[in-house]
This record gives sequence, C-alpha cells and structure tokens, in this order.
Amino acid sequence: MSLSLLPFPLPAQAAAAPTPASVFGYSDFSKQAKIESKFLAVPDAKAAGEDLKTLTAEPHLAGTPEDQKTAEFVAKKFRAAGLDTEIVPYKVLMNQPKVVKVEAFTADGKPLMVGPQREEVPGDPFENNARVVMPFNGSSGSGDVKGDVVYANYGRLEDFDHLAEQHVDLHGKIVMVRYGQNFRGVKVYIAEQRGAAGVLIYSDPQDDGFFKGDAYPEGPWRPDSGVQRGSVQYLFKYPGDPETPGVASTADLPDAQRVNPEGNQPHIVSIPISYHDAAPILKALKGPSVPQSWQGALPFRYHVGPSGVKVHLVSQQDYQRRTIWDVIGKIKGTEQPDEWVVVGNHRDAWVYGAVDPNSGTAAMLESVHGVGALLKEGWRPKRTIVFASWDAEEEGLIGSTEWVEQHAQQLEHAVAYFNVDVAVSGPNFSAAAVPSLKQFVRQVAQAVPSPTSGETVYDSWRAHRNDTSEHRPANAPNDGDVRVGDLGSGSDFTPFLQHVGVPSTDIGSGGAYGVYHSVFDNYAWYTMNADPQFVYLQEMARVLGLEAIRMANTDVLPYDYAAYAREIASYLDAAKKKAADSKVSLDFAPALAAADRFAKSAQKARDAEDHPSGDVAKLNDALRQAEADLVTEAGLPNRPWYKHTIYAPGEYTGYAAVVIPGVNEAIEAKDPNRATQQLGVLTKCLDKAAQTLSGVR
Amino acid sequence: MSLSLLPFPLPAQAAAAPTPASVFGYSDFSKQAKIESKFLAVPDAKAAGEDLKTLTAEPHLAGTPEDQKTAEFVAKKFRAAGLDTEIVPYKVLMNQPKVVKVEAFTADGKPLMVGPQREEVPGDPFENNARVVMPFNGSSGSGDVKGDVVYANYGRLEDFDHLAEQHVDLHGKIVMVRYGQNFRGVKVYIAEQRGAAGVLIYSDPQDDGFFKGDAYPEGPWRPDSGVQRGSVQYLFKYPGDPETPGVASTADLPDAQRVNPEGNQPHIVSIPISYHDAAPILKALKGPSVPQSWQGALPFRYHVGPSGVKVHLVSQQDYQRRTIWDVIGKIKGTEQPDEWVVVGNHRDAWVYGAVDPNSGTAAMLESVHGVGALLKEGWRPKRTIVFASWDAEEEGLIGSTEWVEQHAQQLEHAVAYFNVDVAVSGPNFSAAAVPSLKQFVRQVAQAVPSPTSGETVYDSWRAHRNDTSEHRPANAPNDGDVRVGDLGSGSDFTPFLQHVGVPSTDIGSGGAYGVYHSVFDNYAWYTMNADPQFVYLQEMARVLGLEAIRMANTDVLPYDYAAYAREIASYLDAAKKKAADSKVSLDFAPALAAADRFAKSAQKARDAEDHPSGDVAKLNDALRQAEADLVTEAGLPNRPWYKHTIYAPGEYTGYAAVVIPGVNEAIEAKDPNRATQQLGVLTKCLDKAAQTLSGVR
Repeated sequence: MSLSLLPFPLPAQAAAAPTPASVFGYSDFSKQAKIESKFLAVPDAKAAGEDLKTLTAEPHLAGTPEDQKTAEFVAKKFRAAGLDTEIVPYKVLMNQPKVVKVEAFTADGKPLMVGPQREEVPGDPFENNARVVMPFNGSSGSGDVKGDVVYANYGRLEDFDHLAEQHVDLHGKIVMVRYGQNFRGVKVYIAEQRGAAGVLIYSDPQDDGFFKGDAYPEGPWRPDSGVQRGSVQYLFKYPGDPETPGVASTADLPDAQRVNPEGNQPHIVSIPISYHDAAPILKALKGPSVPQSWQGALPFRYHVGPSGVKVHLVSQQDYQRRTIWDVIGKIKGTEQPDEWVVVGNHRDAWVYGAVDPNSGTAAMLESVHGVGALLKEGWRPKRTIVFASWDAEEEGLIGSTEWVEQHAQQLEHAVAYFNVDVAVSGPNFSAAAVPSLKQFVRQVAQAVPSPTSGETVYDSWRAHRNDTSEHRPANAPNDGDVRVGDLGSGSDFTPFLQHVGVPSTDIGSGGAYGVYHSVFDNYAWYTMNADPQFVYLQEMARVLGLEAIRMANTDVLPYDYAAYAREIASYLDAAKKKAADSKVSLDFAPALAAADRFAKSAQKARDAEDHPSGDVAKLNDALRQAEADLVTEAGLPNRPWYKHTIYAPGEYTGYAAVVIPGVNEAIEAKDPNRATQQLGVLTKCLDKAAQTLSGVR
Repeated sequence: MSLSLLPFPLPAQAAAAPTPASVFGYSDFSKQAKIESKFLAVPDAKAAGEDLKTLTAEPHLAGTPEDQKTAEFVAKKFRAAGLDTEIVPYKVLMNQPKVVKVEAFTADGKPLMVGPQREEVPGDPFENNARVVMPFNGSSGSGDVKGDVVYANYGRLEDFDHLAEQHVDLHGKIVMVRYGQNFRGVKVYIAEQRGAAGVLIYSDPQDDGFFKGDAYPEGPWRPDSGVQRGSVQYLFKYPGDPETPGVASTADLPDAQRVNPEGNQPHIVSIPISYHDAAPILKALKGPSVPQSWQGALPFRYHVGPSGVKVHLVSQQDYQRRTIWDVIGKIKGTEQPDEWVVVGNHRDAWVYGAVDPNSGTAAMLESVHGVGALLKEGWRPKRTIVFASWDAEEEGLIGSTEWVEQHAQQLEHAVAYFNVDVAVSGPNFSAAAVPSLKQFVRQVAQAVPSPTSGETVYDSWRAHRNDTSEHRPANAPNDGDVRVGDLGSGSDFTPFLQHVGVPSTDIGSGGAYGVYHSVFDNYAWYTMNADPQFVYLQEMARVLGLEAIRMANTDVLPYDYAAYAREIASYLDAAKKKAADSKVSLDFAPALAAADRFAKSAQKARDAEDHPSGDVAKLNDALRQAEADLVTEAGLPNRPWYKHTIYAPGEYTGYAAVVIPGVNEAIEAKDPNRATQQLGVLTKCLDKAAQTLSGVR
C-alpha cells in the first residue's frame, strides 16, 4: 500500500550498464559480474506486462477465491523457475463490508446527498465487475451513527489541536478529513481520542485530483468518483492479525492464544468517500472559515462547521477469521544456507491493484524468471534466497507479519529483506533503506540500465534527485549523493526491520498516480499512464533481482555502519535541539558519547570490510549482529511489538518514519522521565553495537 | 487604483496617543503638539461615513455628469472648511465603451458562452443602477477579432517566455490571462509584442475569490460574476492624457501641441471578464497541461491551448476628448508660501468606488474638516497646504499628471506630496514612501490612536508587521522597524515623485478585498466588510491630516538622507550581483564611490538637521535640492517622462517599483553600453546630491 507520487517523461530504449571496477563486499567482482550480466539479460518487458495482465484480470481482495487464484499463479511461476515453493496459509481476523451508507442533511433536515456513488468514468473497461468491493476501510468499526459534521483538514495532530484551540468540541461529531499527509489510521485514531462518533475520509482534488493534472481517463489523476479504500488499523501500535501480536496465526494456533483485537483497531465507524460525495457536504458546511492551508480545490470556500449539517453513517462490517495465502519460494544457499536473503512483495489488492501491488508482483516474477535462468545453467547462490508473495498487506501487513513472527528465530540470521510494493507508477526511481544499505542500493542502481536514456537507473535517479516523493521522508542526510529515504511503515519491510531487525530496503519507480486504492488502479490505467511498454517493470525486475543475487553471493556483507553512525549522530543532535526547544531537561552526553564510540567502531569495521584480513565469517557475524544490537526485547513504550531503537512508524504519521522513536516521542509527550529512560536504552544499544564492531578485523 | 490585501480583526474604541518628547524637524515641539492635539480631536467617524455614502451614491466614472457632481460636493466641503478652492478642468482623451462582447466556441464550432454576463449577486442594493458602466479596459483598442485561445497564466514576462520555450505561437491568438502579479497594462503590452490579436483578462478565484474566503455577499471576496475593470494604458511609458505627455491638457492647449496617443496605448483589443464567463472557455481548452503554478482554483485542470477553442471579441471604444475636474483647495502659508505641501486623493471611480478611491476621499474630507477647525481658530500654516481631489486617475493618473505638468515649476519647491487612494479596505495600516520620509511616516503613525486597541496606529502596524501586502514591495531594508515600501506606480504619487521629484508618501489601511474595480465595491460591501463603524476612515483622516500640518509647520524639513543613502547602497549591491549573474560586464566602482560620498554627506546633513546651527532656510533649500538632484532632465531611456534615477514603475511590473531603473533595466536587457551610460548618469546625480548636502550645517 505504499505510495509515491512523481511526474515522468516518456521512456526510450534501454542500453547496457557498464561493469563496475569494484563493488563493496566483493574482493574480486569479476565472476559475479558475469553472473549479473547473464541475469540482467533475462527480465523481459513483454512477459512482465503479460503477468501484470493476468494478475489484475479480476479484483483479488485478500482472502477471496480470486486472491487464492493469484497465489496459485505465482506459485506456478516460482516452481517453473526452479524454486522450492509452498503456499503458506494463515487464518487471520479481517473485515469485509456488508453495508456502507452515507447520507447528509442540511440544518433544516433536507437531504444533501446519499452515497456512496459508484466509481465510474466514461470508457473504463474494468469498473463494472460485480466483484469490485464497495469502498470501505479495513479495520473500521461497525455502527449506525448520526451527527453534526466538522471539517478537520488532513486530520493531523496539529489540525485537531487547532480545532481544540478554537473550542470546536468533537464529541459525538462526524469528522470529515481529507486524505494525505499522514496514514489514514492516524486520522481515525486521533478523531476517536477526541470523542468523534465517526469519520469520513475523502480525496480532495487538490491532493491527487484535477488540481494536480488531468483526471482519468484524460490523465493519471483521480476522477470525481474515485475512492481511496484502505486500512485504518493502528499499525503504529502493531501490524498483522489483530488477534495475534507477536505470534503467527497458523491454522493450528489455539484460540486461547488469540487476544482481543482492540489493541490495533478503532472502535468508531470510518468510511472513505469520493469528492463527488464529499462536495455537497463540505459546500453546505458553515461556521468559521478555514485557515488558508486547509482550503482544498473544491470550488467554494471551506468552513469548519459544525453548523447543523448532519451526516448519517451506516457501516456493517463482517469480521471473520479468514484464510490468506503467502507464497514462499526458496533457493537454498550452497555456503551459508542459514543466511537468508528475503525478497518480498504483496499480491493482494483492494480491487485490481495494477500499480499497487501487482506492478511489484510482475517485476518480482521477472526477477524470479532471471534467477531461474541462472539456476537452469547450474548456478547456485552462496546464501539462501527466499522470494515471498505476501497476502493481506492491505489489511495491515498481515501476510508478511505472520510469516516473520513464525520465522523470527531463523530471521536473526537473515542478511537482508528487499521489499517492493508499488513498483511502478511512473519513471522516477526512488528508494528507502536502513543507512547501512543506502550505498548498496545506489551501487545496484548503477549496474542497471535505464530505459529512458543510454545511462543507468542511478543516472536517471540523480537527474530527478530534486523531485519530492510523498512517502520517502527527507530527514536523512544524503551524503551529497542521491537521497535514500528512511523506512517508516506502510509496507512489508516493517516486520522485518522493526520487529526482528533485518536490514531492509524498499524500492519503487514513481509518477503521477491519482487512482491509488480505487477501482481505476487497473490494467487500462496502467498502460495508459504509467508504463505502456512495461519497460519500468523490466527495470524494477532487474534492480530487485540484482539486489538479491549480489547480496546472496557477497564475500563481506556490504553494510556501511559509518553511514549509519553519521545518521544516528544527526538524529541525536536534532532530538537534543527539540528537547531544548520543548524545555524538556535531558542529559544527552552519555548517548552522544555512545554514538561517538559507535562511529569509531563503525569506521574500523568499514576499514575491515574494505580490506578483510581475518575470518570473514566472523566479520559477517559481527556485521549482522550490529543491526540486531539496535533491537531491544522490551520494545517501545506502549507499543512493545516495535523493537527497533532507531526506526519506527510515527504514532502520529503512520507512514513516515520517526527516528530514535523512544526518545523523540517521549520529548514530544514532554515526559522527561520516559525520555531519560529511553535515552538510556538507546545508549545501551549503541554501546552494544560499538562493542560488537570494535573487535572486527 | 492602488490595491493592498490584508486580513483584519474587529475594531474597538480609540484612545488618545501620547505626546512625543521630540519630533524630527522640530527644535521645540510643544506648540505644534497642541495644534496637533486640537486637529486630532476633529475628524469624525460618522461624518466620514456620511461623506462616503454621498460620494458613492451613484456610479461616477471620470468625465461623466455624476463625476462632476462629486467634484462640486468636494469643492463645497473644501470651501466650507475655509480653503481657497477652485475646480480645475482638463480636456483629455479617454475611451468609454459602446459595445463589448465575448463569444466562445468549441473546436467544432458549438457555442460555449456569450458574455459578458451581468455583475450580480443575491441582495446587493447597488448592482441594478443603469449607469453602471459595462466592464471594459481603459485605453483598450477597438476591434472585432476571432482567434484560437491560449492561456498565459498571469501574463508576466516569464509566463510569456515559458510559452515561447514551449513553441506556442501567439500570432493571431486571443491570450487569456488572469489578474494579479503585475499591472494589467503590462499583460496586454507583452501580449501585443508577441503578436496576439486580443486579450481576455479574468479574475481567478484563487487570487481574490472563493479560494481566499467567502465571496460577497457572504464575505469580502469576489463573487463569480464580479469583474475587475481597469486601465491598460502603458503607464510605465508615461501616464496622463495620452495626447499630451509632459504638457498640461488645459482647455486652451492648441491641437498642434497634442501628439499621437499611440505611445502609451495598446493597439489590440482587451476585455476584462468574470470567472463565470472565463470558466467555460478555460474548461474547454486542451493542449498541454499547465505548469503547476499556473493552475488556478476553477474546478478542472487548466491547459495551455491552442486546441481549436475560439473566442470572438468585439470591442467598440468611443475615444473622445472629455472634460475632467480636479478640485484644488489651498491654505496659503504664512512664512514659506512657495513651499507647498500637497495632499491628494482621486475621486473618480470605475463604478461606485466605496473603497477605491472614495474611502480616501472621505478620509481626506475629514482631514480638511480638521484643518478647517484650526483655521477657524485663526491658525495658519507656515507653508502652503494644497488639498487635491484628482479626477480620471483610473484611466491613467490623468488628473494629477496634468496638474503636475501644469505646475512643474512651482512644484520644484514643493516639500512633500502625501497620497491616499485605497484608504480603507480593512484595519491593517501600511505605507510606502521615498526613503527620506520613511521615518517621518512612522513618527506620524506614532501620534495617532489606533481604533483597535488602546495603542497607536504605529503599534498596530508593528503588531501585523509580518503580514504581506500586495502592492507594497518588500525590497527595501526596514532598518529593523516596520517596513515602509517603495513607491512604484498605480496611484497619483507617480507624477509628483517620478516626473518632478517631490518627496512623496502613500498610505492605506488594508484588509480582505475581493471586489476591486467591480460594481460590488460599493457602500453596502464597505459597511459589511471593511469598516462598519468608519473608525478606519477616521484613522486615515488623522494620519493624512497630521502628515500635512506637521510638514507644513516643521522647522527643518524632516528628510532622512542617511536612510536614503543606505537604501541606494543596497540597490547598487543588488544590481552589481545581478550584473555578475547575468554576465553583463560593468564597472560599479565609480557609482559605489559616489554612493559612499552621498552617504557621508547625508550623515552630515542628518547631524545638521538634529542640531541646526546655521541658516535653517539654507539648510531646508539644500535638503529639498538633494531630492531634485536625483532627477535628470533626460529621463529614462525609452521613457523620458520618467525622470527620477532611483524609482520608476517596472516596465514589466507596472505597479511595483524598479529601483535605480536605468541601471537595472539595462542589465535585464543585457545591454552593457546602456548600463554603463546609466551608471554614469546615476553617479553624476549622486555626486550632485552629495555636493548639495556637503555644505550644510
């Protein structure tokens, strides 16, 4: 469900990328270069396009028969490539909508609208399928409520705080918020905290509609009837099956081990709507005029309300334990079979999911195609490669989370998790990663030809480096190079990195994309707007596959802890400044000293990696252990599932990463005791990692 | 016609301002303090409101019988106050519309719209008067043209350049531009240069409509039918009667002395329209999608065109030499009768002109009321005070320009021109001035009570100092104090400062104001939105009157040339940087040295002003001469009417000032020869002014 928005030029022919002189992690790259060259020749644009067409032929919501059919298709492809393949079922609590209804009335009781309206535009060939699920929110509460409407902009903490300052009471109100700026679950989370009876979430044309460009079918942006479905799970508390935090929902899990799902779900009703449906309500709303930054692109001035305009919401959600299907395909490593390299993408979609997620699935299948070609020539990786097709990501990263929880112990030795979700919505490559892998991603991008020019993916990336991308935050220093973002949440890297500490990356190729989570994210939209020749699917297949085979065969694990240390130091500096600004009295000296020790050991490790002189297996163990040292068993305060001390999704952002979360969130809460305690935890972790790296050579 | 846009709080009761200990220009302020105190007690909010109601009872376009009636009303008020009053007629070339028609057609010839639509909203009591002139542009060409439409955003130079880069040919096209960012005459000027056959100028709701706030009558912003009339005269070439640049159009001026008016008028048709009329045309327009910053607030994506959408414009303009009426009221000075202090405001309006300009007229009449009360007690000013009610400002600053041209010689001794145009559209005071008078304006504002608090106008001004104001550019350093803007053009200070070198100020009190130059700028809108209790009219009457009586009685002319020198130095620094950036090779050393000499002399003069020890009359002569030294007889290249070397309206901005215009415009044109020559002119002027001030004591 991750999402990045970028404009794009037209694709041209791809050319071969140059063979690099030296590659981080390899003492002699020449043999690997030949393997990579063979690999890169295989992924095929046309074949990727055909897979995309097959995968998106029907709506395939998690847990439906059509979803199961796509699992079987992927498994067949995995097997054909020679992977040791199984379909892994889990039984997880998920809702499907029975009734969703929105009615609005003027202050004197006259009807304003009845919805939801159908999603429809002239000429779309996919919109009329009977299996298109009505717009709804995963994890929504059920209910039948009526109340006065209040408009709360994006539903950010500062938006709700502004309403509080203006003495707008939200108790019993229906809060109308627009999509954007944070994860939709956060909007509902705060609304519920403030006493709201229900939430309507609509897509304002300013954010992904006509204000940005031509709407589908004239262009790539959201038409008036397009609705963004999506989960409102409190994934910043914990993701996955709401009943089994920390435990895998295997078929044989006893009911006694399941918990009350309240911990990561709202209790109130929330319904996503189009701006076609939102407009008459917003137009009728009076009360104070909005702050200028709250004004959207609908053709009237917005008002905060309440002013007697009432909305009646009906939401009947059918919660059941439903079966989902991950597909796992393995290639056993010849030298370090326990050191897994995991490549993953989710397969389930709200509707057709041409971009989200099946551009990623099609790309991954062509990666598998390429690796399969190597296997057929007798090649075997040194480390085990695991390709994973996750299910029920949209409902809350469920398929990946359950699998990670099931394999937590083995994953302590996994050397990397390479995610792809929204692989292609346009031509602009971007990536997020733990700092230790940022240079690795850049080097892989340097080895793959760009379809738009005679140059590499990296070169195109550099050329559009000043563009902004919605879900790849800019708070990381970029070392003067192309920016690789930090990992927040919103896709399947979350359990790997933030629950068990596997170094992770996430890649994608972005563009103008206004049909996110709507019926219009389909094959027709894709071929019209994102990638008519499927050359970006080919590009993503190459990048993703190359990440896997390069990591699987590396001599030394290409983790750059010196870069990691620089980022952590900058996070501590920023937190110190924030504490001072917030007048939270804190002693940063021990943590800064530990960060300094970590930096010194990291530099020593980096030297050892560039010129390994001792036991490489021991060096690799230490390198892998250093990331594990940043994970604490206790987890974060109030959300123990999240165990990484450096990265977590923000409680009030959801998608965007909060860095050194224990410390920063305590400062934001103006809780000096908790902040001191969390600084202590962080100091211990940094010291542990410094200790781990200090012995390497 | 000047315009500033600011939000505003609610007014409260006024309190008395403290008497200042010392005032720049006065060796002993105690006597003057008593006079000022008496003056301040007179201007009355209710009386100002009544005058406003009388002045705006009928539409009073320049040259109409209703305009003449307002001249007689003002003259009666002047006489009642004891002013030596005359109505001064000029005979000037002006157009009035006979036919204005806009039709648009789709690419296949189907009608899209026929306009202009009437300006109407529910419940406005003024919109149905038969004398409301149909929307048109002063100085528009006549014609009957049809062509493909191209959208050019604000019609700025960079907008037209963007179209040229995109190979959009404008020859024979109808260019559709939106109001804002520059003077409308500039939009037409560039469109004509690029070959356009006609121009449609519309008001986008993003700039002064519903995007900014509630539209009239729910709020102060422009409703869908509201049209901004206005002159498209090339006032940056020269303002005033197009047939008599530099010469007064008195009734006895021989025809032989009139010139072809082409020098300051477009040849093509331009028509202003509402967004109600613009929307169907813009919506139908296809072709390339606009750059994001060109997107307005109408509810569809904008396109550049051309795409077959055609517009048919008919404009029949009745050009005639028409009589206009300035009203001039004098109070002869007792000691320096030749040193005039001129206070001016225009009286003519496009329609009712409640804000623009008659809030200024009502304020000025209460200033006159206050001065009249002093006269009745036997008070006489040391210098002559001239109150002026200008006519035909809207058509091109005509009334003021003709009068200044007629009295150019006497005005060499005028010590100040104090302008007020849009006096009140809300509560936020702002000012623009030559640098030598910036401190003077601030001191006057410190002496007047604010109606919103127990404090002074200056205090309120400081409190909203971080607000931005549309027509008061921020390029002047503010000495750490409230910002006083630079004088560009768009109101009657232009001939005084920029043609004959009279030190000038311009003041106003701004707020949310979306009905500029429409039928809705009327008494109903004013009392609903701008100033229901007329307390800001009272405030402006006090500030304006105090400027006059303080300047008229001052011992030493309160010109701060040290501040002037600092600003000129900063202008030279910026120009030097711009020349370097533009790779225009220029030797700034002589000009910088002259600026330095000017700064030293200016500081010496400032010391002499603070502690005058010699002949004060001689000191004052030198102080007045220094501003005159900055004026050249030759004028600016290609526009000799503009004679001031430091300030002119920008050729491509129109309203906003361009500083050291000869130099900066030569650099922008990448003409090093002209730039060198203009730097030489500037150097000579600065040396002359330095010389003038160096002898003072």
